[in-house]
Amino acid sequence: MLTQSKPQKLNWKPIIKELEAALGTKNVIQRKEELITYECDGLASYRERPALAVLPRTTAQVAAAVKICNKYNVPFIARGSGTGLSGGALPVEDCVLIVTSMMRKILNVDLENQRVIVQPGVINSWVTQTVSGAGFYYAPDPSSQIICSIGGNVAENSGGVHCLKYGVTTNHVLGLQIVTAEGDIVDLGGQIPEMPGYDLTGVFVGSEGTLGIATEITLRILKTAESICVLLADFTSVEAAATTVADIISAGIIPGGMEIMDNLSINAVEDVVKTNCYPRDAVAILLIEIDGLAVEVAANKHRVIDICKKNGARDITSAADAEMRLKLWKGRKAAFAAAGHVSPDYYVQDGVIPRTQLSYVLKEIEALSQSSGYRIANVFHAGDGNLHPLILYNNSIPGELEKVEEVGGEILKLCVRVGGSISGEHGIGAEKRCYMPDMFTVADLETMQWVREVFNPQGLANPGKIFPTPRTCGEAARAMSDTSKQFDTIKGVERY
Amino acid sequence: MLTQSKPQKLNWKPIIKELEAALGTKNVIQRKEELITYECDGLASYRERPALAVLPRTTAQVAAAVKICNKYNVPFIARGSGTGLSGGALPVEDCVLIVTSMMRKILNVDLENQRVIVQPGVINSWVTQTVSGAGFYYAPDPSSQIICSIGGNVAENSGGVHCLKYGVTTNHVLGLQIVTAEGDIVDLGGQIPEMPGYDLTGVFVGSEGTLGIATEITLRILKTAESICVLLADFTSVEAAATTVADIISAGIIPGGMEIMDNLSINAVEDVVKTNCYPRDAVAILLIEIDGLAVEVAANKHRVIDICKKNGARDITSAADAEMRLKLWKGRKAAFAAAGHVSPDYYVQDGVIPRTQLSYVLKEIEALSQSSGYRIANVFHAGDGNLHPLILYNNSIPGELEKVEEVGGEILKLCVRVGGSISGEHGIGAEKRCYMPDMFTVADLETMQWVREVFNPQGLANPGKIFPTPRTCGEAARAMSDTSKQFDTIKGVERY
Repeated sequence: MLTQSKPQKLNWKPIIKELEAALGTKNVIQRKEELITYECDGLASYRERPALAVLPRTTAQVAAAVKICNKYNVPFIARGSGTGLSGGALPVEDCVLIVTSMMRKILNVDLENQRVIVQPGVINSWVTQTVSGAGFYYAPDPSSQIICSIGGNVAENSGGVHCLKYGVTTNHVLGLQIVTAEGDIVDLGGQIPEMPGYDLTGVFVGSEGTLGIATEITLRILKTAESICVLLADFTSVEAAATTVADIISAGIIPGGMEIMDNLSINAVEDVVKTNCYPRDAVAILLIEIDGLAVEVAANKHRVIDICKKNGARDITSAADAEMRLKLWKGRKAAFAAAGHVSPDYYVQDGVIPRTQLSYVLKEIEALSQSSGYRIANVFHAGDGNLHPLILYNNSIPGELEKVEEVGGEILKLCVRVGGSISGEHGIGAEKRCYMPDMFTVADLETMQWVREVFNPQGLANPGKIFPTPRTCGEAARAMSDTSKQFDTIKGVERY
Repeated sequence: MLTQSKPQKLNWKPIIKELEAALGTKNVIQRKEELITYECDGLASYRERPALAVLPRTTAQVAAAVKICNKYNVPFIARGSGTGLSGGALPVEDCVLIVTSMMRKILNVDLENQRVIVQPGVINSWVTQTVSGAGFYYAPDPSSQIICSIGGNVAENSGGVHCLKYGVTTNHVLGLQIVTAEGDIVDLGGQIPEMPGYDLTGVFVGSEGTLGIATEITLRILKTAESICVLLADFTSVEAAATTVADIISAGIIPGGMEIMDNLSINAVEDVVKTNCYPRDAVAILLIEIDGLAVEVAANKHRVIDICKKNGARDITSAADAEMRLKLWKGRKAAFAAAGHVSPDYYVQDGVIPRTQLSYVLKEIEALSQSSGYRIANVFHAGDGNLHPLILYNNSIPGELEKVEEVGGEILKLCVRVGGSISGEHGIGAEKRCYMPDMFTVADLETMQWVREVFNPQGLANPGKIFPTPRTCGEAARAMSDTSKQFDTIKGVERY
């Protein structure tokens, strides 16, 4: 659709003029040197320079920018802090990047009703900082929480280490003000959890910028637990750690978070972060956070320690004070960055499997590492079955990235094979859309595309994301040729 | 759309013939005497006889019936047990009712991964019965749980007394197999909580049969808590009970359920159910269920009792054993039925308000009762701010229903005014669609309608529900005339 209707040589002058009139000259970035920043997001192996980047400060300015893009039939892509790992904010050729990082106001704090309204550029950790003094916090905590934005979290339905017990972003967004792909301002959801009508808030969260741009987000905040304890259990096999995770859940205990790191990750973290609390000779460590009333935490801690011991834990460290807890989590949260220090490059995957398949899948990943010759570090949200294998490689060697992506693809297919998913929290973006046909039938994907057409009839909002195209995805193209459907050239729905 | 395209005199003979061929003769009900059962659901004041009722047993039979309806351009309406309270399963003239009550198989029980797959006609309480021996349960528990079906729960996104802590139906549905309005079989969601792509499972749950018919439902089951305690606190004012609810939540305690019943409800229940544990002279009682580890329950019980006493509770009864707990809940669950015994008829509303507005709204409802002259019993999910005022009246007096509906409407508008919603768990159905413009702008409603068109382009699946029509809703018609939109005669989207 896009490729068909886009003029061959676009005259950007009137577009720039209109954008500058609506947003102010300094908020329209057009110099190539300045645009380099916006060529990629956290998936740095995919790059494309946008024609322009604009920095709106209000919902009205976002709407104005979108309307101008519509007028000139120019694709636009929303970007928050650019920390996404699946290329969800990757520009396409001749697009306008709408950067929300100047929209950083916390608009309303209502402690009594446990909600906070923020602009999309607000940094994730600021929400908790704002309400922690009053005994509240915002639950979803991606590892990038000190730099990633709430708008990006909404787009990718981000998770984090505490999502095992408290759910991902979609469970904490009560309402949204959005600018649709055509520039209309629409309210979805509201200030209370249950609203009648279709749950369009739920559709928008995780739609990766393909349905519009969120400009005001109403978040649910939670009461901070009376007591929190973090345990570090040291295992001589990854399987033993994985079995422990399954046993803890089977016992009816839902910890705040349960994370496994393997030996490669442990040593990378110790080399870089130097927590001095991760045992370098452990084959795997399991971090378990238990929260609740003090009596509850004490009882559950006892039960969890028993389960760890039953599964052969060599040693169990308990961190009850805040400083030690933060230290234990800091290593985990820095694991991706640490991998970047022990290898020139790394490629992170984000597959989900049923918890009961953890041991099997980890063995298969180890076999893939052996057969491919790439070291694979495993650090993951074990409680959710959300794997983050980090494939270590050297991108300066031509052809390596392609090989590594193939290994990553094998891991995703393995996840699907055992009844899992190709994404837990990083989104599909530009990176994984070719794997969508491994999970969904053509009819399933068509149904989603129809919903996209409702919000985004011209296909201008974040094209080239989530859905496979024959041009880029051989496999998807094969699947689609069965019904002679071509998603890339699909006709727009007539809007009445 | 419907009124325009429907032939004036439909020849039902070929339709019946095709339905009988697909479903078997005995599964196509056409005799008027037999069809009386299907004239209404739990909202018995709205009635319309369907032309036919069919009883499929498989997904393929549902798909076949829907395809036949499409072939002859006949509207169809799915019905489970018919316990809905907003007329969601109300027939329209010349429609086929697709009754799922023969689809009662529990298809799969996977305790290890905590999920159960059921057909839509399975009764809510059967799910818990099936897994309780192994220490699991299904959380959403509408008061009608011993007769309502999971398919109906999915359609209306049903709640229940335990949804304060554990969420409503949408939080417990992992995946769906649906038959779309055109008769295609599509899978939404999956076996694990987080799936990539748009959250269409979330859109379908609560869509009240307007997007298709769920034929297989994957439910999440939870571990039964180690310990459960129910407290009954006796108050001399409804406001004191309401303040207690707000104070408990503010203290960071989230009970499994928190329900308030006023004096009128208490005495109705005692007259009918005879629990002999509800104090007949209490102005209000508050039922609080606390669950978790034994140590946690003990600690929270202590804190809750303190909060109740601080707010002037006269007396607090504690039920620790299962029999006594069930007795306390039985009265609450029978409250609607009991109202039917103390008054010839009752009209139940289902508004939601921010918890902090409970005292104010209850006073306003009392004022409405005084000014209108109707007794209003209050029994509600106080923790969620989900009110269920029962307006007592006599339907045999002409014009009374209309007056009572007006009082109900005033209550809904009051809920919206304080930042709440016109439905917590009963759905919009046929009953409350005229109030949708009080909550949503024309643009909001249009966006929902566009999504409906994706799944239901011919408008044959459950017409006349959720969305206001100028023909029936004066107020909505006024709102819509602003943009000269007529939802009832909207043109179908062309499906490519």
